[in-house]
Amino acid sequence: HENVSEAPNSLLREEDLQSGPLTTEHQRHIQGVPPVHPRMRANFENMIRAAQNSICLALENVDGSGKKFREDAWVRGADGGGGISRVLQDGHVFEKAGVNVSIVYGTMPPEALQAASAGAVARNAGYARDERVPFFAAGISSVIHPWNPHVPTMHFNYRYFETDKGMWWMGGGTDLTPSYLYVEDAQHFHGVLKSVCDRHDAAFYQRFKKWCDDYFLIRHRGERRGIGGVFFDDLNDRPAEELFKFSSDMVGHVVEAYVPIVERRKHMPYTEEQKRWQQLRRGRYVEFNLVYDRGTVFGLKTGGRIESILMSLPLTARWEYDHQPAEGTPEWDLLDACRHPREWV
Amino acid sequence: HENVSEAPNSLLREEDLQSGPLTTEHQRHIQGVPPVHPRMRANFENMIRAAQNSICLALENVDGSGKKFREDAWVRGADGGGGISRVLQDGHVFEKAGVNVSIVYGTMPPEALQAASAGAVARNAGYARDERVPFFAAGISSVIHPWNPHVPTMHFNYRYFETDKGMWWMGGGTDLTPSYLYVEDAQHFHGVLKSVCDRHDAAFYQRFKKWCDDYFLIRHRGERRGIGGVFFDDLNDRPAEELFKFSSDMVGHVVEAYVPIVERRKHMPYTEEQKRWQQLRRGRYVEFNLVYDRGTVFGLKTGGRIESILMSLPLTARWEYDHQPAEGTPEWDLLDACRHPREWV
Repeated sequence: HENVSEAPNSLLREEDLQSGPLTTEHQRHIQGVPPVHPRMRANFENMIRAAQNSICLALENVDGSGKKFREDAWVRGADGGGGISRVLQDGHVFEKAGVNVSIVYGTMPPEALQAASAGAVARNAGYARDERVPFFAAGISSVIHPWNPHVPTMHFNYRYFETDKGMWWMGGGTDLTPSYLYVEDAQHFHGVLKSVCDRHDAAFYQRFKKWCDDYFLIRHRGERRGIGGVFFDDLNDRPAEELFKFSSDMVGHVVEAYVPIVERRKHMPYTEEQKRWQQLRRGRYVEFNLVYDRGTVFGLKTGGRIESILMSLPLTARWEYDHQPAEGTPEWDLLDACRHPREWV
Repeated sequence: HENVSEAPNSLLREEDLQSGPLTTEHQRHIQGVPPVHPRMRANFENMIRAAQNSICLALENVDGSGKKFREDAWVRGADGGGGISRVLQDGHVFEKAGVNVSIVYGTMPPEALQAASAGAVARNAGYARDERVPFFAAGISSVIHPWNPHVPTMHFNYRYFETDKGMWWMGGGTDLTPSYLYVEDAQHFHGVLKSVCDRHDAAFYQRFKKWCDDYFLIRHRGERRGIGGVFFDDLNDRPAEELFKFSSDMVGHVVEAYVPIVERRKHMPYTEEQKRWQQLRRGRYVEFNLVYDRGTVFGLKTGGRIESILMSLPLTARWEYDHQPAEGTPEWDLLDACRHPREWV
């Protein structure tokens, strides 16, 4: 990674900025997958970079400390690609908030490419079984950890993948990780996500809500890291333009889904015990991210920028031996919702 | 897991307590591997349980708070096996200290068995390539996290594996994870380990010291979690009795390697900044254990008792975005030793 003092206008390779016609390569190889316009790379980059700007601004406003996100930008030189990390640490409301954009031109052994996926798409279509697959990836990812245990942690991540032979897919999701369960917050969050989903496909919310509950399972604990939201991966079952619009709409409503909850909770008083419980839940967050999260494991194994990948980890976390909240307590209620996903809308 | 109020005299299956002759099974299948006496299972259990008692006593003494290790024991019912976890939390010197013993009768798909190993031994010898392999494992493992950033964290783990067709191997190690580097502590620790190794094989220390430096590498950081010690795995290149004596001797000198360092450092004053640095190093400890440690990953994937496996995690840990100690500081010196392993004796 080569650090740069200012992010260039585009992190794409020059050739991807040209708006050419579909190449024959794109149409020749993949049966049953809609072709994707070469401008999609540029469109996706534009979308996520604009979102990074607007979301960081909204978070600075709700933080209210006057602190700004610190930006680190880097490029990959001749290979193309790079990234922009924005981190706000030690704010009034936010302990650690990060919003990253990255563009990757890489190659992956097919097993690794497949392991990084939910398995629904033959990601190496068009390549020999043992051939390294050149891929393009563009994504925005964010984790927001607040100080106050009544304000939930929020995560979102939207990404576009493409191989050089025209296989492509999109993935993403937005999910909430509270330490204390407020039903009205869960309903608001899921309600916003559902209304965005419904505009694109009446089946999306139920399907992606369940996918989210399945994905964010900490298997060794039998509990989810939080109360979910929506999650999807390997989507290419309709024209790329439609999925791009859906992804853009989801990214565009992250602030509406999250910020009203932050405003509602950020001044609530809390006890040492509540802070301790939050820290134990942060420990679970670390367990999920380091053991199961595909994006994290993919990033660590493909030589991504470590500080950007692990920005998702909380500032502090805690592990007590055999901690069990007493039945009927607010801590137990949250745990119950993490063990038995509920319907919120 | 079925909790029991008191650990039984043995966690072995009844048949393994009988001191029978070598079965023909043991001698038929494995070419080039010394046969192992069926009493080895009982001998190994006796050794690790006695060590658990004496090490816990020594740690309670140096802690000085009057606190005792809390014991949780469990058995696996008809399957045989079980474990004894001992944890001391919130002592005077120790933030979280755990010493676990476990006995496992399990079966593993061969890929998983192999993935859990360093690869030097065909662990599924005698079984078909896709056949689940019944195995026996006995082990002691321990992680000691002190409060004071001048007192290092210490870990050790010694284990004996056997398959039902007579393949067996031993593994283990003892290593040190300081937040601040004291050369005399490193020399004492490595010196004790070397003198134990030298009694068994003049080549052991160099070989296992390097293995330790290689094993405890946090690959995505390019740094080790600490300053090492010794580590070995898949050892079965000499009679089991000899390796058993070596393992016993190593376990028997954990206290001598570690406790004098604790005594020397435990009353040292420290600053907020030093505590913060310790917490950042604890974050690295978590990264290693959850991403790379074979024992942890093996335990999580084979349905081990989660609280015992994750007892190795520190009480608290910290991740700051892009923290870099200034060159020449004590923090930088420690990091340098984690990046470039040194010779201590």
